[in-house]
Amino acid sequence: MATGSEGMEDVRMRGFRERASVEATLTSALDGVQPLPFEQLSVTECAGRVLATDVQSEVDVPPFRRATMDGFAVRAEDTYGASDYEPVFLDLTTSSMPGRDEGEPISHGAAGPIMTGAPVPRGADAVLRAEDATERGGRLEVTAPVAKAKNIGRIGEDVKTGSKILSSGRLLLPQDAGLLASVGVDPVQVYRRPVVRIIVSGDELLPPGDKPDGFKIVDSNSPMLAALVSRDGGIPQVVRLPDDAHEMRRALALPGADVIVTAGAASVGREDRVPLLVGELGELLVHGVSMRPSSPTGVGRIDGRPVLLLPGNPVSCLVAYDFFAGPVIRVMGGRPSQWPYTSVTLPLRKRLVSQIGRTDYARVLIVDGEVEPVAISGASVLSSVTRASGFVVIPAGLEGYGEGTDVEVHLYEAAGQL
Amino acid sequence: MATGSEGMEDVRMRGFRERASVEATLTSALDGVQPLPFEQLSVTECAGRVLATDVQSEVDVPPFRRATMDGFAVRAEDTYGASDYEPVFLDLTTSSMPGRDEGEPISHGAAGPIMTGAPVPRGADAVLRAEDATERGGRLEVTAPVAKAKNIGRIGEDVKTGSKILSSGRLLLPQDAGLLASVGVDPVQVYRRPVVRIIVSGDELLPPGDKPDGFKIVDSNSPMLAALVSRDGGIPQVVRLPDDAHEMRRALALPGADVIVTAGAASVGREDRVPLLVGELGELLVHGVSMRPSSPTGVGRIDGRPVLLLPGNPVSCLVAYDFFAGPVIRVMGGRPSQWPYTSVTLPLRKRLVSQIGRTDYARVLIVDGEVEPVAISGASVLSSVTRASGFVVIPAGLEGYGEGTDVEVHLYEAAGQL
Repeated sequence: MATGSEGMEDVRMRGFRERASVEATLTSALDGVQPLPFEQLSVTECAGRVLATDVQSEVDVPPFRRATMDGFAVRAEDTYGASDYEPVFLDLTTSSMPGRDEGEPISHGAAGPIMTGAPVPRGADAVLRAEDATERGGRLEVTAPVAKAKNIGRIGEDVKTGSKILSSGRLLLPQDAGLLASVGVDPVQVYRRPVVRIIVSGDELLPPGDKPDGFKIVDSNSPMLAALVSRDGGIPQVVRLPDDAHEMRRALALPGADVIVTAGAASVGREDRVPLLVGELGELLVHGVSMRPSSPTGVGRIDGRPVLLLPGNPVSCLVAYDFFAGPVIRVMGGRPSQWPYTSVTLPLRKRLVSQIGRTDYARVLIVDGEVEPVAISGASVLSSVTRASGFVVIPAGLEGYGEGTDVEVHLYEAAGQL
Repeated sequence: MATGSEGMEDVRMRGFRERASVEATLTSALDGVQPLPFEQLSVTECAGRVLATDVQSEVDVPPFRRATMDGFAVRAEDTYGASDYEPVFLDLTTSSMPGRDEGEPISHGAAGPIMTGAPVPRGADAVLRAEDATERGGRLEVTAPVAKAKNIGRIGEDVKTGSKILSSGRLLLPQDAGLLASVGVDPVQVYRRPVVRIIVSGDELLPPGDKPDGFKIVDSNSPMLAALVSRDGGIPQVVRLPDDAHEMRRALALPGADVIVTAGAASVGREDRVPLLVGELGELLVHGVSMRPSSPTGVGRIDGRPVLLLPGNPVSCLVAYDFFAGPVIRVMGGRPSQWPYTSVTLPLRKRLVSQIGRTDYARVLIVDGEVEPVAISGASVLSSVTRASGFVVIPAGLEGYGEGTDVEVHLYEAAGQL
């Protein structure tokens, strides 16, 4: 801003007169960013976390010959030829129950009641289905034959000792937690979740929970950013500050966070001192990006920690988070850098206009299987991203997309909520 | 099972000789199930929860005329005709800063420095961009004109007092939390999360964290089910029991849960007493479903609470959860009953065989854009659902799908993890 100090002029010269591309900014943001060291977690808590090592099974699953049906452990050949018209009779022995020792060995002409999951007694080589036999006068009337090995789970059939069951980098699903528990893996090594310090600043900001009052507005960025950070696997740590250089410097320099995200005070106005402070405390790598909204976005490093300078306008803040902060946080937590949005490809009902040399993030609605831009008046309109179905990115090389063009819409809504 | 008591025979007659369809079972499971009453939550904690009321804004956003750019508050007509060659000079007044009172009124020939978000002083009707003016000798040299109303956010332009900003049933996104905070909504009314008691039983079960030992296996169902319940918005409450009727009865009847999910002891074997107990304590509505895997699934009610009887085999347990327990839990929490999986439609590389009259849940892999069945040996093979990309449902009316058929694959992996 023309009334600014010389320092501000410097920033403006470096940043806003020569804006970085979205691609170059993302490269700067991700430069040197690695997954954090792993931590140990109980197998009952590991679902939703990212596995930090390959996992081999130390056991066979099943660890013993196991019945896969309720029925009778038999020697298969004893049942051959059995039918409703010509049943075969076998002598009943003791039962095999899950978790107990296998029943007495099955000899020729014998049948042992057995439950699903129970160990198959020695001597038996098949489990006859309960439906194919009836207890009658203390003996078992068999009315159908069973083939050798039928209804028996072999040792190591599911998982063999030493085999890899899950790979490093896997976002653990509910069934993965089950599998890990079943082979006795505990604790599980997962990537540590990055602690993300969210610094919002502005004399005009009231804390969330307050009502807007006079010229004071309520901070909407910190609850939004905290939820985004949680979604991306990070642990949010919110710090709200007035426009005060001393406090901002302290919040930027304080240890205890893996990533720093600031919202507001990142433009070239008089109070926009965050870029200057980042340059002073560390390095300001990018300031000003060729995109709309969110051009007053910056990227830096302080003590090796990534610092993402997001605009204070709520929509710009969301967009800049998604383009630059989200990937950094996800990669640190061992996740892929890609957007966590599902997308659909649908035709445009109205053209989307952009400008060559600038990446545009257009909020759109899906109406009757077609895509239309959300009518908006400005970047500050948070309701435009709560009304939108999602967004379309128009790359810097294009002037927009014409009516009828198929475009990829990234959906805000969670999977299953469509 | 033929060696069972008369009671077991009853169950078998009711359940397994006449299996219910998947559709009828789901109807029974969801019968009378409603979203739970709402609870109040701080706006900073509401993201990811489901809104239980429509929300109207009690304020205008913006609540005052707001600068949407850094620059100078002016009377637009004063700048008309200004250019680099014929600049216009204006007198600088005091600055307008966000959160403070508007600066002194702008009279003819004056310009007031103003920051984004700051209130526009009376008298001014436009904000001139900082780039279009330079401070020179205490005056402002204006080198481009600005149109009336430009770069000013009107009162109520984003959100008008009394307008509906979010609808009941909305799964709150990060930006929704921001919007709610900005209009001063706090607390937020969201549906209470259902408490889901997960009862696993079996003498053969060791707790997760233990190593499998002899004929004892580790309970893999409770960590899997707890993660599924959390995914679906419920609060899991795990209870692990030996095969003991007294303890099972107690766990089924105890208050303090909104839904009961049992795993294991739900078949027709001797120890499979859960169906009997549910019938005794309440109602057993369905026992035995025409599906594979998971046919020994049941649905009941105890004191009006839904009870879902899932098989003990881990894969069957997962499948029955997804078909019947998940929808109940999601609906109670105000979510849609649909699967929370994204899906893709791709051609089959190999045919998928099923049986008329039975719904099949086939685990599949996506390989080079084609779908192929996961080679499996049994329903107990949890590794089949950790190796699979997802599953295909073959409806009861079909014998399967032929090679080359386009099938819908429901993806296990979370959005963004593909």
